[in-house]
Amino acid sequence: MMVFGLSVRVVGKGLRDSWLVVGLPDAGLVGAISASHMVRALSLETIGHVESDLLPPMIVIHQAKVYDPVRLFGGGGVMVLSSEVPIHPSLVYPLGRAIVDWAIREGIKGLALITGIAVPNRLEIEVPEVYAIAGSSEFKELLEKTGIKMFEEGFVVGPSAVMMRESIRRGFPSIMLLAQSFLEYPDPGAAAQALAALNKVLGFNIDVKPLLDEAEMIRVKTRELMRRTAEAMRQMKKSHEYEVPLMYT
Amino acid sequence: MMVFGLSVRVVGKGLRDSWLVVGLPDAGLVGAISASHMVRALSLETIGHVESDLLPPMIVIHQAKVYDPVRLFGGGGVMVLSSEVPIHPSLVYPLGRAIVDWAIREGIKGLALITGIAVPNRLEIEVPEVYAIAGSSEFKELLEKTGIKMFEEGFVVGPSAVMMRESIRRGFPSIMLLAQSFLEYPDPGAAAQALAALNKVLGFNIDVKPLLDEAEMIRVKTRELMRRTAEAMRQMKKSHEYEVPLMYT
Amino acid sequence: MMVFGLSVRVVGKGLRDSWLVVGLPDAGLVGAISASHMVRALSLETIGHVESDLLPPMIVIHQAKVYDPVRLFGGGGVMVLSSEVPIHPSLVYPLGRAIVDWAIREGIKGLALITGIAVPNRLEIEVPEVYAIAGSSEFKELLEKTGIKMFEEGFVVGPSAVMMRESIRRGFPSIMLLAQSFLEYPDPGAAAQALAALNKVLGFNIDVKPLLDEAEMIRVKTRELMRRTAEAMRQMKKSHEYEVPLMYT
Amino acid sequence: MMVFGLSVRVVGKGLRDSWLVVGLPDAGLVGAISASHMVRALSLETIGHVESDLLPPMIVIHQAKVYDPVRLFGGGGVMVLSSEVPIHPSLVYPLGRAIVDWAIREGIKGLALITGIAVPNRLEIEVPEVYAIAGSSEFKELLEKTGIKMFEEGFVVGPSAVMMRESIRRGFPSIMLLAQSFLEYPDPGAAAQALAALNKVLGFNIDVKPLLDEAEMIRVKTRELMRRTAEAMRQMKKSHEYEVPLMYT
Amino acid sequence: MMVFGLSVRVVGKGLRDSWLVVGLPDAGLVGAISASHMVRALSLETIGHVESDLLPPMIVIHQAKVYDPVRLFGGGGVMVLSSEVPIHPSLVYPLGRAIVDWAIREGIKGLALITGIAVPNRLEIEVPEVYAIAGSSEFKELLEKTGIKMFEEGFVVGPSAVMMRESIRRGFPSIMLLAQSFLEYPDPGAAAQALAALNKVLGFNIDVKPLLDEAEMIRVKTRELMRRTAEAMRQMKKSHEYEVPLMYT
Repeated sequence: MMVFGLSVRVVGKGLRDSWLVVGLPDAGLVGAISASHMVRALSLETIGHVESDLLPPMIVIHQAKVYDPVRLFGGGGVMVLSSEVPIHPSLVYPLGRAIVDWAIREGIKGLALITGIAVPNRLEIEVPEVYAIAGSSEFKELLEKTGIKMFEEGFVVGPSAVMMRESIRRGFPSIMLLAQSFLEYPDPGAAAQALAALNKVLGFNIDVKPLLDEAEMIRVKTRELMRRTAEAMRQMKKSHEYEVPLMYT
Repeated sequence: MMVFGLSVRVVGKGLRDSWLVVGLPDAGLVGAISASHMVRALSLETIGHVESDLLPPMIVIHQAKVYDPVRLFGGGGVMVLSSEVPIHPSLVYPLGRAIVDWAIREGIKGLALITGIAVPNRLEIEVPEVYAIAGSSEFKELLEKTGIKMFEEGFVVGPSAVMMRESIRRGFPSIMLLAQSFLEYPDPGAAAQALAALNKVLGFNIDVKPLLDEAEMIRVKTRELMRRTAEAMRQMKKSHEYEVPLMYT
Repeated sequence: MMVFGLSVRVVGKGLRDSWLVVGLPDAGLVGAISASHMVRALSLETIGHVESDLLPPMIVIHQAKVYDPVRLFGGGGVMVLSSEVPIHPSLVYPLGRAIVDWAIREGIKGLALITGIAVPNRLEIEVPEVYAIAGSSEFKELLEKTGIKMFEEGFVVGPSAVMMRESIRRGFPSIMLLAQSFLEYPDPGAAAQALAALNKVLGFNIDVKPLLDEAEMIRVKTRELMRRTAEAMRQMKKSHEYEVPLMYT
Repeated sequence: MMVFGLSVRVVGKGLRDSWLVVGLPDAGLVGAISASHMVRALSLETIGHVESDLLPPMIVIHQAKVYDPVRLFGGGGVMVLSSEVPIHPSLVYPLGRAIVDWAIREGIKGLALITGIAVPNRLEIEVPEVYAIAGSSEFKELLEKTGIKMFEEGFVVGPSAVMMRESIRRGFPSIMLLAQSFLEYPDPGAAAQALAALNKVLGFNIDVKPLLDEAEMIRVKTRELMRRTAEAMRQMKKSHEYEVPLMYT
Repeated sequence: MMVFGLSVRVVGKGLRDSWLVVGLPDAGLVGAISASHMVRALSLETIGHVESDLLPPMIVIHQAKVYDPVRLFGGGGVMVLSSEVPIHPSLVYPLGRAIVDWAIREGIKGLALITGIAVPNRLEIEVPEVYAIAGSSEFKELLEKTGIKMFEEGFVVGPSAVMMRESIRRGFPSIMLLAQSFLEYPDPGAAAQALAALNKVLGFNIDVKPLLDEAEMIRVKTRELMRRTAEAMRQMKKSHEYEVPLMYT
């Protein structure tokens, strides 16, 4: 039986030895826009979904077919996790654990977490910087070779933070890519930089130009998802990320 | 023992090999008005009801007899599920699962879910369009033969969405008919089109003319149910349905 | 151990083969005023009480003796259930079930539920009408012989509704008498008519004249209980009772 | 394991065959001021305390020693229960039961509950009246011999009410002394009268003069506790006590 | 399985026979600033952390490495517990118990709790006074030898209070040092005095001068943590500490 508020189930077969790129609705929707673009650009298929009574009672219809709002996509040696609804704060911990559990159980290669890191002066930045966090020293070396700057000091809040910590605890490979972005305004430009960095790190070849060409249309389409995501971020104290850590002053 | 907030029981004997038409209070009360009209037009009898402490502590009196507010009706090879109270958001998941469980257990033929899909320009539409969603490719072909347009892209929120997803997961036949409607204003005209489509799809012969002739009276009688239903829809973020999905941009 | 919010215990020995008249705080306090009058007029004794942590942490003192606020009274072949506090909405379902359980276990004859049915034009009505609902067709015949009008179409909300439904489900005898009343203003006149009807139905001989003579004093004494009861009624959507049912339009 | 919200533990050894005087924060802080005065006047020692996660996460420091905020004091054949924090409404039922359990288990003689009974015209009363409630007819006689008036009709709300009812149910001796007092203003004068009555009833010899001499200082010191207690009283509908009971009209 | 709201786990190996200095976010951030300074001044390493779903879903990044926000640090015969997030009121009891459990299990020497005690006239105080509370009479003597004043009368609220009480109950050594401080304004000056007192009591040799030299920078860096901590303190009724105790009047 299900205990209200704690139960999350990941259903689906993973692609062994493939990376799972996680792009959930977050600051500037950087993760969600990146994931959505990957699905289209790489013609990925739905290979699984997440079930929970904490998700809204909703189905999504695409090309007259019925889908879940939080899905796993896969194809050509890569997988993507994304969501068409914000992740409710009470889902963040159980979802994070469920995904890492599933990833280990299915023998996948590692988690690549894409997210935005809001910067107050985003308007003045033409090409957003991308920072990386490595789940192990081995990955740190790999990332440094690519020339991507490491995220040196600060906080990360939300599902990506929970997944990275859970991965580290269980010795499972994980990296995080954080693109400078708006906080509550959809940011396809930041997503393009995040995916360009992902290309470098994992050797992918995703064309990010369409994200820049269609930026205005993407912003219009994702306005509502951004608005709801902003509510969830406020509840999680996402704005913590603007702060400097206390320790090692 | 019952765990508060999760327990729903469907009581009653189903008619084997009959369709269950589900019309719950929803956008424009399209489902509820359709269900109520079917019960009267086909002289259906009460054959069961739904029990839950999450329903209001209420009895309904008809012709001096005592009834439950959420009931199953049946007769002449068809069944109807309807409710004289809005479905509280916390009841949506357990009710959806309980109904599909019951339908499978009782050996019924399939679920036909009737609901409204709110459109902002409803006032300018004389004859509301009806769209269909099929729970399987087999039904999709059937629906397309009837000339009813498929619902191609979008969200559906509420009990019908949960029932359709649960049906698909368990391989149980289901279709959904969505009539363009008002969101928070009772819409007998939309119900008439939904039932006309149901006639085509399932080969019924329900006279929908009374719905149009008595539209004004129906709107007056259902004003209060509409008002309460609007509250429940807001809590479920029903307005999601106005949005465009994120994926496959 | 007690699970918070669900536990209600009825303590006391019932009078076998006697009716239990239930008069709880409700619309116009019709039930509570009727019950209180019966206790005084028939010199009934306390024979039991209801225990629950959902009741306020309160004792009632009468003639320097300590009592529970929700009590069973009995004597001369009749029992009365009444309450000096409103029934909290979360208590309505478990209390309703606990009373019917107790009634069956103690071998009592049946439940006679007295309640008010608010009418907007109460001020213009000199002698409030009383309507009846029968828990079985057998009682319907009995009630019709007395000349009391049947309640034909509508909703009943609250503890009485739950008790009647539970009685019907378990095949236990029950009737309900509903007197036209004010919604949120104590109505001794309505209580007098309800008791007059009860006299006819169950062959009692309760003098209702004091209720009319002391109407003003009763209204003053019950003003506070009415105010608190109004809060509970609003939470239970008691105002549903003004609506017309949807089905059988 | 502890279930949130229900767990209260009384720790400590009781003095066999001694009375436990209970003076918790309540109307006019009559109980708390009386208890505090007894502890000082009789030089009582801490002999136990109450543990619960529903109490604020707080320690009290007296003469550089660490104490719990809800404590049992004892010495010279008498015990006192008092609290330096208001009793949260959700603690009222479990605390009441835990204290009576403990009292029976430890073989103590009985409970003497001291509380205030707010009267609207307190300002005009020079010497507040004290009323008594007896947990059994035996005590009623005893109390009447002392000349203290019995509390004839009304409500008592709060921890004292729960303790008295629980004592009566379990056949354990209990009395309650209620001094006329302010509702939300500390009332040392009422406490003095309550203790004078306690002297008569239990044969104690507590000097109450300091309560009158230091009234102003006590009022200043207890202002904050009174303010917080007022919040808890409002949640428990303490103002019920101004009402007249419904039954036996 | 974890029960929501009650589960806290301390992970890590303690240094046997070393003191654990606890400095959590509190009045004036005295504890947190002291702990952070010790970690830097003594070059302590992360040796453990606290896990709970009641902590925000957050990771902290220092020098491109991933950390938990509530950590144990150790080195050179001393340990420190600190947090970069406020302790949510519902975490206070379970965290307090978990830390004392862990300390006993790991064979550590004792708890030294550092906290601020807000004083309204802090602005006029140049060198804040430090007061001590001893968990046993043995420590009281030790503390008095150092010349530190004992905290004689008052309340202490929050995680430190729970840890001290739990230590006393289980016979585990503990002391508390309270520096006069601002309530809701970061107070490095108070932290400096607290650490100077800690030096005396435990024979440490922490240089506190940097805290005074960098006071302005510390205040800027901790402004946000202070703001969030103030919210948690208000929920715990931290302002209790301004009150005088009731007992022993």
